[in-house]
Amino acid sequence: MTESDALISIGRAAGPTAGSSESIRSLIDDLTARARAAARALATCPTAVKNRALLAMAASFRADAAEFRRENARDLEAGRAAGLSAAMLDRLELTDKRIEAMAAALEQVAALDDPVGEILDVKPRPNGLRVGRMRVSIGVIGIIYESRPNVTADAGCLCVKSGNAVILRGGKEAFHSNAVIARLMNEAGRGAGLPEGSVQLVPTTDRAAIGELLTRNDRVDLIIPRGGKSLIEMVVKNSTIPVIKHYDGNCFVYVDRAADPKMAAEIVLNAKTQRPGVCNAAESLLVHRDVAAGLGAEIIRTLAAAGVEVRADERLRALVPGLKAAAAEDWDTEYLDLIITAGVVDSADAAIEFINTHGSHHTDAIVTDDHPTAMRFLAAVDSACVFVNCSTRFSDGGEFGMGCEIGISTDKLHARGPMGLKELTTLKFIAFGQGQLRQ
Amino acid sequence: MTESDALISIGRAAGPTAGSSESIRSLIDDLTARARAAARALATCPTAVKNRALLAMAASFRADAAEFRRENARDLEAGRAAGLSAAMLDRLELTDKRIEAMAAALEQVAALDDPVGEILDVKPRPNGLRVGRMRVSIGVIGIIYESRPNVTADAGCLCVKSGNAVILRGGKEAFHSNAVIARLMNEAGRGAGLPEGSVQLVPTTDRAAIGELLTRNDRVDLIIPRGGKSLIEMVVKNSTIPVIKHYDGNCFVYVDRAADPKMAAEIVLNAKTQRPGVCNAAESLLVHRDVAAGLGAEIIRTLAAAGVEVRADERLRALVPGLKAAAAEDWDTEYLDLIITAGVVDSADAAIEFINTHGSHHTDAIVTDDHPTAMRFLAAVDSACVFVNCSTRFSDGGEFGMGCEIGISTDKLHARGPMGLKELTTLKFIAFGQGQLRQ
Repeated sequence: MTESDALISIGRAAGPTAGSSESIRSLIDDLTARARAAARALATCPTAVKNRALLAMAASFRADAAEFRRENARDLEAGRAAGLSAAMLDRLELTDKRIEAMAAALEQVAALDDPVGEILDVKPRPNGLRVGRMRVSIGVIGIIYESRPNVTADAGCLCVKSGNAVILRGGKEAFHSNAVIARLMNEAGRGAGLPEGSVQLVPTTDRAAIGELLTRNDRVDLIIPRGGKSLIEMVVKNSTIPVIKHYDGNCFVYVDRAADPKMAAEIVLNAKTQRPGVCNAAESLLVHRDVAAGLGAEIIRTLAAAGVEVRADERLRALVPGLKAAAAEDWDTEYLDLIITAGVVDSADAAIEFINTHGSHHTDAIVTDDHPTAMRFLAAVDSACVFVNCSTRFSDGGEFGMGCEIGISTDKLHARGPMGLKELTTLKFIAFGQGQLRQ
Repeated sequence: MTESDALISIGRAAGPTAGSSESIRSLIDDLTARARAAARALATCPTAVKNRALLAMAASFRADAAEFRRENARDLEAGRAAGLSAAMLDRLELTDKRIEAMAAALEQVAALDDPVGEILDVKPRPNGLRVGRMRVSIGVIGIIYESRPNVTADAGCLCVKSGNAVILRGGKEAFHSNAVIARLMNEAGRGAGLPEGSVQLVPTTDRAAIGELLTRNDRVDLIIPRGGKSLIEMVVKNSTIPVIKHYDGNCFVYVDRAADPKMAAEIVLNAKTQRPGVCNAAESLLVHRDVAAGLGAEIIRTLAAAGVEVRADERLRALVPGLKAAAAEDWDTEYLDLIITAGVVDSADAAIEFINTHGSHHTDAIVTDDHPTAMRFLAAVDSACVFVNCSTRFSDGGEFGMGCEIGISTDKLHARGPMGLKELTTLKFIAFGQGQLRQ
């Protein structure tokens, strides 16, 4: 029996039968206790040990590619039987190329600077006490995500490198694939000196395990849900643990009166069409009334020529004939497709107000050569990423030079926007004294 | 009818009668809508306007001291009738001195640097895009607290200065006092140019209003509960809004083998006795076995001479005769009184392990002259504040040079330890481009 068979049998034993809530509770109790113990050790684990572990994991991914494909085949077969779409099955599949990409990502994370242990802002107080901050790991992080199995490897290695123990709960479609990834990471990690329990997968697909995990705020410090809106809302509603949400993006481009025309057309086209199916693609376009008839119409033609369906408000339709009308809800929609909602505004302030009302606070861009307008847009748009004169598609950990990302936070607290290694740490206060007493 | 009478009558109308949940819902709907609109305006409110508003509030506190005392007298009378303890009544009372202290605090916050608008870490990427961060306000902050009315003024002014709209929900014992403070802040603020709704008090003492507020994650960005454990647990359980918790402190001092004896005795005495009733006072003492019989016994004598009751573990009782035995639960207790739990450990690592298990992750200190031990303690103790060779009593926004604090976070995310103005802000990513497109 493989480990994943064992996991499945635990899953079955913990199924919705009499006594199941007790066995799920005990399962999560064990899992979180191991994670907490691992987190204590990982918090001060030397960088060299963490890096050696990540490289050993990468090597084991490459050496065991055949086992990956075997376990992945079980998920694919079950997925076909369950009638998953071709797109879903494609996301689920672990080809040799994708296994190599996971291994390479582990090596890239090993090469990044260790964020843990940084000491910053140490300043002397009048009494001679030196007060500053130290960057430390958060502790135990739970990640609840949907089908792509590469998230298991990516999230696992980012947590390890930042000194956190991780509990992973992937989608049930990828259960066998995730189990083999987690097992190899654990075995290779332990061999390299990582504490037992550094990377753990919830060993059941029973959803009750999620509910149980979300109330263990005594042992889990942070929950990161990645997936659809209903998954995230379920997590927020049930969690007593702090949650950093990763909602999707309804990103806006605002073309100002003072926009460079060529730049504006290129940025809108790039933001919409370079990769339409991702969260930082543009979904909405606002054009200043002074340039709507000229530049606005030209941008619309460019988009149409690239196969984009434009859904326009009445003002734009009056200026550019033949456009389809936007419905009210289109302004709040993330299409993830070659569709864009477009409209006319009276001013940059009107654009800011509209974006703050209808946008998703993810990534929004202005195209303008007017300096005060650019600075006002940067300050007033209430989004994780606000750009001047570039494509919304740059909202990405790699593009920001973070080396990697665990996702893009649409929350305001702790981490906002792309989350890299540093965002998986926290700062504590430290003080160096020479016997100071409080008066 | 005074405004607070009006508030009370709203509270009554919204009492636990048929239809009450509907009227509470509508009350919180109005309150949060006003707060959200105010937050939008406050986010880019000029520093000069915010400072002028804070100074106007201070002036109005001084001018209306008589009204303060009149409304406060109503709370005191109700408190006496309800049988509040003398200590509770004392906390509730607004003397002229306390009103002056609230006014002075407003002026101090006006004098602090505005954290909003700071641009940091802007670095060029290989494609010429300059990526950095901008410090911005969080939005709408809800503060749920217990009886001291000065929290209304302190929390209100810190939120305003950091560009946030605030919704305050104080204890019912201080309802009239809080109402007059909030009303004066609002009137003075509006006169100085602050948006309507910047500082609002929940105008009812009905607890259902808290439940309703805690689920408005569409309009409220952060909840800060300040008070007893049961209040905080209720908030965590019911909130769909991110919460930053302010639990109390079970602070440890560890006296290492390499401690300077005089410094160790002074630090323990100061940490325990300088102000025993506060969260950063020491509650527990650990002594290395090599110095337990000598230095340990001397520290115990010093504490006893200062009137401190020492509850000791078996090892310490064997070395220092006549000590009372500590019960197991004493190690997890915050006494807030002249009592300390004391024991012997075999090593600094054992002390770290013990503190991480029994402490409250608030503030812990080591006394040692050994450098590797000091650095290991700093890195491994999982607390908001970790100190070397000074009293735990320095865990305080004022002592850290933050100018003020809204409380001491015992959470790990976003803000850990004393929270000042900067901790009431968040960072968004910004990018300055020249037409960059994603390849």
